[in-house]
Amino acid sequence: MTYELEQESIIKTLLSSKVKNVLLQLPDGLKPYGTKIAEELQRKARVTVIIHGDPCYGACDVARDEAKALGIDMIIHFGHTPMLKLKRNIIYVEARSKLNVTRLVAKALPLLKKYGSVGLAATVQHISAINKVKLLLKAHGIKVLVGKRQGLLKYDGQVLGCDFSTCISIASKVSAFLLIGSFTHALGLRIVTRKPVVLIDPYQEVIEDVELKVKKVLAKRLYIVQKCLGLSKFGIVIGLKPGQLHLELAKRLKDLLSKAGKNVFLISAREINSQLILNFPDIDCFVISACPFLPIYDADLYPKPVLTPNEALAIAGVKKLEEIYG
Amino acid sequence: MTYELEQESIIKTLLSSKVKNVLLQLPDGLKPYGTKIAEELQRKARVTVIIHGDPCYGACDVARDEAKALGIDMIIHFGHTPMLKLKRNIIYVEARSKLNVTRLVAKALPLLKKYGSVGLAATVQHISAINKVKLLLKAHGIKVLVGKRQGLLKYDGQVLGCDFSTCISIASKVSAFLLIGSFTHALGLRIVTRKPVVLIDPYQEVIEDVELKVKKVLAKRLYIVQKCLGLSKFGIVIGLKPGQLHLELAKRLKDLLSKAGKNVFLISAREINSQLILNFPDIDCFVISACPFLPIYDADLYPKPVLTPNEALAIAGVKKLEEIYG
Repeated sequence: MTYELEQESIIKTLLSSKVKNVLLQLPDGLKPYGTKIAEELQRKARVTVIIHGDPCYGACDVARDEAKALGIDMIIHFGHTPMLKLKRNIIYVEARSKLNVTRLVAKALPLLKKYGSVGLAATVQHISAINKVKLLLKAHGIKVLVGKRQGLLKYDGQVLGCDFSTCISIASKVSAFLLIGSFTHALGLRIVTRKPVVLIDPYQEVIEDVELKVKKVLAKRLYIVQKCLGLSKFGIVIGLKPGQLHLELAKRLKDLLSKAGKNVFLISAREINSQLILNFPDIDCFVISACPFLPIYDADLYPKPVLTPNEALAIAGVKKLEEIYG
Repeated sequence: MTYELEQESIIKTLLSSKVKNVLLQLPDGLKPYGTKIAEELQRKARVTVIIHGDPCYGACDVARDEAKALGIDMIIHFGHTPMLKLKRNIIYVEARSKLNVTRLVAKALPLLKKYGSVGLAATVQHISAINKVKLLLKAHGIKVLVGKRQGLLKYDGQVLGCDFSTCISIASKVSAFLLIGSFTHALGLRIVTRKPVVLIDPYQEVIEDVELKVKKVLAKRLYIVQKCLGLSKFGIVIGLKPGQLHLELAKRLKDLLSKAGKNVFLISAREINSQLILNFPDIDCFVISACPFLPIYDADLYPKPVLTPNEALAIAGVKKLEEIYG
């Protein structure tokens, strides 16, 4: 297994509790480990385990309603750091990757040296590597900064697909970022900080300066937003996952777009995908209020224009496109 | 519009209530009408409307949790008759089809005459046609019986994909059934009554005796069940839609299969599809406790063997295959 899934610590916690019924929630990449974990917990912690099979996209996506319906005492949620302020009955297991990151960083040194100073960031799977990578960069004369934890983030230098606050706080002090994670995170980081981002993706064994790819994505965003200016029927999608339900934001976007002369409908959805879009053939353009970057990350999956809340504000004339994409 | 969606009656009900926030829930086939209905209700009943975008498969699939999260006063659920004993805050709209059914029945007369006596059944979309069709068949010398409403069913002669009790009650008194609905319903009706079924599908303009197709499906079921006898790792899927949550059944199936020497895991899911199956590569065979016929109706969508609860009982040695499929 290429992840540290903390089974021993979970078993200890369960044995010292009165928990009898456990729901395992795993992102799709970890679901194949579900049966092994279930077997171990059932044998060693003497609990009944149900593995939750629906997709799970982040800490925003906690199966609270589902656990209630199933009579569950404890959710064990893998792969993410805590985001929602849930009172009790949930154990977050971070699923730290065991992949060797420093080997790839060593290869990336020539690319990083030209920037001189670098902000260092990682997704939670790779957060254990931050210190080693920092030392390695310093040893090669590169100035390194790691942003303090804040916002929804638990660790210094951590990023989420929707929260780059650790990096925003140090962006003015560095020439570029080194991100250990995926292209999705690199794209978000580049958009919000407007600094060059070097990506190290340990799963794909990829090292790359994402600038060219991001430029293409941004050009596409500008094209989509321009196109939507002339469209008339808008659907605002309200996400139903516990951490994605931004009802007031959705209603505000509806009001602002209506004032700008658009015909606007509210649509709720747990799963936001192309089928949802195809089911409303008369709607010209969708805005997803669930997640600030989802329309960008998933752009190629949609058969129609789909906007971020910020882009919708540009359509409504409340923000300028330059404010969003510089 | 080819459906009767009772907007005037809904508006009247809403105006005489204190309802302010409405959730429209529509099966995918009716979702394209969502914006038109929303516009009309907002204008005439002065309510705020959210259209629910997730799939909706039947009256078993009511967006109760979703409505609660969205602060909704009233769900308007289209396309199905009431199934769940919900206390309040839901209007069921049946979505009666306006298609001409008798024209097709007239074409089917030669096929029906050879059976002499016919049990008449319809899905709720076509239930208004029952009386006209009955008169037409009688006028041509065919003996017609319509089973009394019972079980989950609201109307005499009505069938659901999971409830054929109106037809079971008259099966011994007729030579065949005439079903106005879809192949899915004809398949279920043929399996539970073991009588020939003539299908009239007004959407597809299809008239057919489904016997040959059903025989092929049943041969495939026997093959799948035989294959699963030799497999070892089973997943029991618990449905999370309000009317599909059969937790005790799932646990009973787990116990029985475990006693039969299988290694069994419980898996919960709101959406049951091929992605769910693919996410558990080490599980050999799945049993869906959510719906008694889902594995048969959707058989071609799954990349692995997927069984009904009855078929799982056959694997566990509790039922005989002949009891299920005759």
